[in-house]
Amino acid sequence: MHILVLGAAGMVGRKLVERLARDGRLGKRDITRMTLQDVVAPQAPANTSIPVKIVTSDFANAGTAAPLVAERPDVIFHLAAIVSGEAEAEFDKGYRINLDGTRYLIDAIRVVGGGYKPRLVFTSSIAVFGAPFPDKIGDEFFHTPLTSYGTQKAICELLIADYTRKGLLDGIGIRLPTICVRPGKPNKAASGFFSNIIREPLAGESAVLPVSEDVKHWHASPRSAVGFLIHAATMDTEAMGPRRNLSMPGLAATVGEQIAALERVAGKNVVARIRREPDPVIVGIVSGWPRDFVTDRALKLGFTTVEKTFDDIIRIHIEDELGGKFVT
Amino acid sequence: MHILVLGAAGMVGRKLVERLARDGRLGKRDITRMTLQDVVAPQAPANTSIPVKIVTSDFANAGTAAPLVAERPDVIFHLAAIVSGEAEAEFDKGYRINLDGTRYLIDAIRVVGGGYKPRLVFTSSIAVFGAPFPDKIGDEFFHTPLTSYGTQKAICELLIADYTRKGLLDGIGIRLPTICVRPGKPNKAASGFFSNIIREPLAGESAVLPVSEDVKHWHASPRSAVGFLIHAATMDTEAMGPRRNLSMPGLAATVGEQIAALERVAGKNVVARIRREPDPVIVGIVSGWPRDFVTDRALKLGFTTVEKTFDDIIRIHIEDELGGKFVT
Repeated sequence: MHILVLGAAGMVGRKLVERLARDGRLGKRDITRMTLQDVVAPQAPANTSIPVKIVTSDFANAGTAAPLVAERPDVIFHLAAIVSGEAEAEFDKGYRINLDGTRYLIDAIRVVGGGYKPRLVFTSSIAVFGAPFPDKIGDEFFHTPLTSYGTQKAICELLIADYTRKGLLDGIGIRLPTICVRPGKPNKAASGFFSNIIREPLAGESAVLPVSEDVKHWHASPRSAVGFLIHAATMDTEAMGPRRNLSMPGLAATVGEQIAALERVAGKNVVARIRREPDPVIVGIVSGWPRDFVTDRALKLGFTTVEKTFDDIIRIHIEDELGGKFVT
Repeated sequence: MHILVLGAAGMVGRKLVERLARDGRLGKRDITRMTLQDVVAPQAPANTSIPVKIVTSDFANAGTAAPLVAERPDVIFHLAAIVSGEAEAEFDKGYRINLDGTRYLIDAIRVVGGGYKPRLVFTSSIAVFGAPFPDKIGDEFFHTPLTSYGTQKAICELLIADYTRKGLLDGIGIRLPTICVRPGKPNKAASGFFSNIIREPLAGESAVLPVSEDVKHWHASPRSAVGFLIHAATMDTEAMGPRRNLSMPGLAATVGEQIAALERVAGKNVVARIRREPDPVIVGIVSGWPRDFVTDRALKLGFTTVEKTFDDIIRIHIEDELGGKFVT
């Protein structure tokens, strides 16, 4: 089978491609070909005999999608997007990439014709929800995003459901929790600290905690995120009916619980590298974010997290990113 | 003040324009100018000294909105749309008019500049909801439309909320109930019978009832719909916060209750003109429609229906459309 990954150079995209190359198959079928697209050249996975084509192109261009889908990939992972902060700062760019790009894609799929109806796995976000929330956000809670990014994701969900209902593709949108522990360097994203306070201390570096320890948030490990994508690509979507978008399972943890888990897994010295520096701006932003979910529908459809506790999330990071070692 | 009505030739548009011309004012301000746009030339209201400009243009064209908003109307009523059945049959046309047209409009507003921030009243629809429903659909129930029309309305709601949040306009979207009694000739819309079984018998004609009497639906009179639009144009939208779209109040009635009301208002002879001819196709379509709502938020924000009972809905039709008389 032929797999197309849009946004393959991003963090989740890279991990997905590594996993696909390692497995050599998706569900019951061998992978015979992969096309990896992003605005910066994605890296081909090492140690694979699967032919990989690298495409560097701008997802916001009207002509980008057509040649990619003309080759009739069986499964399309659509992870192409600019992130929340950038979509908020650059209004037009956000709409071009996060909304128009998706429309170009689904319209390009539609014009291929000849019964072509690929599985399209779209990564949506819990940013489709906006405060005030119930304590736990259920499967039927409405979408009132408070960012342009969340708005664009909510719109793409609606489009993919409608195109699927019309038989033009076989789409599914999955709302990923915040990915934790996010590998790489600290960035300026307001959500960065959820990962920074784990990753940096394990690397022997100090990390800033800008909010109080009672802040609760919704997490999943990168390994779980990749698992969700694989399951979405291989599951029986008929069981979903016309409701093609859903919130993924995750783990609700307060910052205090994150820190306690870090101490259990890595010890007091590591935890001592967290510096408390309250930042009212970040406190304000984070107060509008979802904290906890009930994801009965996703669980029933077979989506599961790898981790059972936040300790597991930390151990997964140590295994997958640090070769099993950290700075004590 | 200058008022622009997009889609002014439609049923609700015509009634809105008549009311505005009759009132001569909107809220506390005199109307000094009206621009009426539609794809077929809207009629200028009779008996008004307000200057009225008629514009015949296609809302789906990228260039249609700019010259209209360049004249900086204070209030824009956006009623331009193709209806559910047409949007379902003509997929591209539906997206062009019901989605792209709205985007052209809000982007045109944005580029006017100089602090221009008009009140934009958008007519959305209960078609943003898709079965299965709870008994009564509340203010926080999610949007899973089962038509392209409903999808397009849901997307426009999201766009208008985001553009409002960014300070680019002052938008509000109102989801109208099914308008009953709809004046005019019977049409092929699946929802037509809700009005046909009242309007045709009152005119001495027979009407076909294709569903059973226990079918429940959500109604408002044309007079109430115009009232909602006026209130949306004049209310303090600050009170809405960032949640700029809401379901309008209405009246849940079964077909049996409709018929009983018709008998009370107009007598047995009139009711005898209803012919029962069950149509499995229409029964199927209607079974997926919303039946009842809780619209606490709209009520709290001051939206009210004129009618208290379905009898009132029939009386309003007799007063407004039949000059107070009907065929006994």
